[in-house]
Amino acid sequence: MIKIAIDAMGGDYAPKEQVQGAMLAIEKIDDIELTLYGDETTIRQYLTDDTRITIVQTDGVINMGEKDPISAIRSNRNSSMAQALTSVRKGENDAIVSSGATQALIAGAHILVGRLKAMKRTAIAPLIPTVNNTSTILLDAGGNIEIKPEYMLHQAYFAHIYAKEVLGVEEPKIGLINLGTEPGKGRPLDKEVFELFEQDDILNFVGNVEPKLVLDPPCDILISDGFTANIVMKTIEGTAKGLGTILKQELSRGIFGKLGMLLSIKNLKGFKKRLSAEEIGGAMIYGLRGVVVKAQGASKANGFYNGIRQAAQIVRNDVLGKVTAVIERELE
Amino acid sequence: MIKIAIDAMGGDYAPKEQVQGAMLAIEKIDDIELTLYGDETTIRQYLTDDTRITIVQTDGVINMGEKDPISAIRSNRNSSMAQALTSVRKGENDAIVSSGATQALIAGAHILVGRLKAMKRTAIAPLIPTVNNTSTILLDAGGNIEIKPEYMLHQAYFAHIYAKEVLGVEEPKIGLINLGTEPGKGRPLDKEVFELFEQDDILNFVGNVEPKLVLDPPCDILISDGFTANIVMKTIEGTAKGLGTILKQELSRGIFGKLGMLLSIKNLKGFKKRLSAEEIGGAMIYGLRGVVVKAQGASKANGFYNGIRQAAQIVRNDVLGKVTAVIERELE
Repeated sequence: MIKIAIDAMGGDYAPKEQVQGAMLAIEKIDDIELTLYGDETTIRQYLTDDTRITIVQTDGVINMGEKDPISAIRSNRNSSMAQALTSVRKGENDAIVSSGATQALIAGAHILVGRLKAMKRTAIAPLIPTVNNTSTILLDAGGNIEIKPEYMLHQAYFAHIYAKEVLGVEEPKIGLINLGTEPGKGRPLDKEVFELFEQDDILNFVGNVEPKLVLDPPCDILISDGFTANIVMKTIEGTAKGLGTILKQELSRGIFGKLGMLLSIKNLKGFKKRLSAEEIGGAMIYGLRGVVVKAQGASKANGFYNGIRQAAQIVRNDVLGKVTAVIERELE
Repeated sequence: MIKIAIDAMGGDYAPKEQVQGAMLAIEKIDDIELTLYGDETTIRQYLTDDTRITIVQTDGVINMGEKDPISAIRSNRNSSMAQALTSVRKGENDAIVSSGATQALIAGAHILVGRLKAMKRTAIAPLIPTVNNTSTILLDAGGNIEIKPEYMLHQAYFAHIYAKEVLGVEEPKIGLINLGTEPGKGRPLDKEVFELFEQDDILNFVGNVEPKLVLDPPCDILISDGFTANIVMKTIEGTAKGLGTILKQELSRGIFGKLGMLLSIKNLKGFKKRLSAEEIGGAMIYGLRGVVVKAQGASKANGFYNGIRQAAQIVRNDVLGKVTAVIERELE
């Protein structure tokens, strides 16, 4: 059995959607057991089945807009997030899924779960949609503003194994986000990473990739430093949001437009759904001694379920063990 | 009269669309005279009126995919782009509009027009659309991968004056592209720029802006270093392109979808039009001793006309003179 800790109280619609997501997961996935951390009374309101479910009572929630995530975690050791993270450290669970505040989850994971010895920097790796109905791993959308090329190499190994074992891509390709495709483009960091990746035997490096192909990239993994990849992620988000607004403004013009829009409503929902982080799944935090999956803060049941599904698959295929073996072999 | 040099041979659809754009400009703008640089015979095929038009015969074109822009310019001194740039240096024209290869235009402008003494780094500043039907200046989408905060300050002054004089924004606001809104976010460069801008008397600095607001920003100017802003620009482009593809895939599903799409076709065109760089205008290259406007490579007549209109307005309102005065006063 794969044991997964659920931070039931974290997220914009917690605990309702988290508990409902957990119910979906229990229904669809046979080899998991879930422990829900949170307020038992509230959780029980949404619990429709207690097969393979344990509830652990916790007190306090880390606020979504937490400005000082480290002290938020330190001063809320009995919160659902902190308790769920601690259970992974103690080996009581194999993984945790949370849609709580990202920075608090990253900080909490460092403090309470700990970093993999082999990886010097953790990374947060969301999945972004493609025009081909697949998804691309974006690295590092999280925190490492200044990073060494060799740490990026380790993150790339992680993504490589993740793409194989979780996304089912046989020969994952990786591209370096850059402002031109020719070798030698970009900042000193980009040039160094390019050389390092090109010489590497494990990675299938396709070279530089310009973000004008961001939703139709020639690879399964897009990598950059934590500043740039975060900017890319937020620009995709901002562009999608802005274009949605403009599309609505334009489509509803005139009587034919309104009628057309009415007929298209189901398809427009399909469009929205394909872009929703909900459907694609959570972001894994790479480089920890346990499996930590961050589901979107705005997750509804289905999105949260997708996060659980992902976490189960990461454990099932022993991604952490495989990554550690690869990096340790490389470091020898 | 405002005298504008037209690189008639540069661009994906040159010279046809460039000449037709010039014809539009002559028709709509009274105080301009245009000199078209290119192959006279071909140009004359599309010329419908020669009022305030001069043609200068040139030979050779800088290829759009030019890998080595500097030597392309040096070895094609008689090309339409090089000749048009040179005419600005000589004072024969006040401005140049080109939809030729961007890097060649930047390199050519440095070599043939020269840099403003007051500005240590040039910058390329495209306009991006907003959900409110206005546009935002994006800086520096061009070349300065490594840049000092004070050079970014000068670029910001330029954009400030440009927004006032060309876009007609009375009190232009400027935001720093960053991964969080709180002061202290980002790389060392971002922190330094933040402090510098905050203390500045000329700029209306709104602080850090996350690109999830990129099409609906709380400011008229978005600034970052040349690497980051270029990545932002290309991510917007890639997201818009990808979403367009996904939208088409989704909208055309089913019989109601197809019917709805038929009814919406005019509005979908309106949507596409609003996003088109065509409609918004060209990108000015800041920091040169003349007015250099880069129209999109894929410009059609209307897009090219918009570039000419912009160039005329920059000259009419003496943007260069005003920028130089401000920077020189600051440097004293």
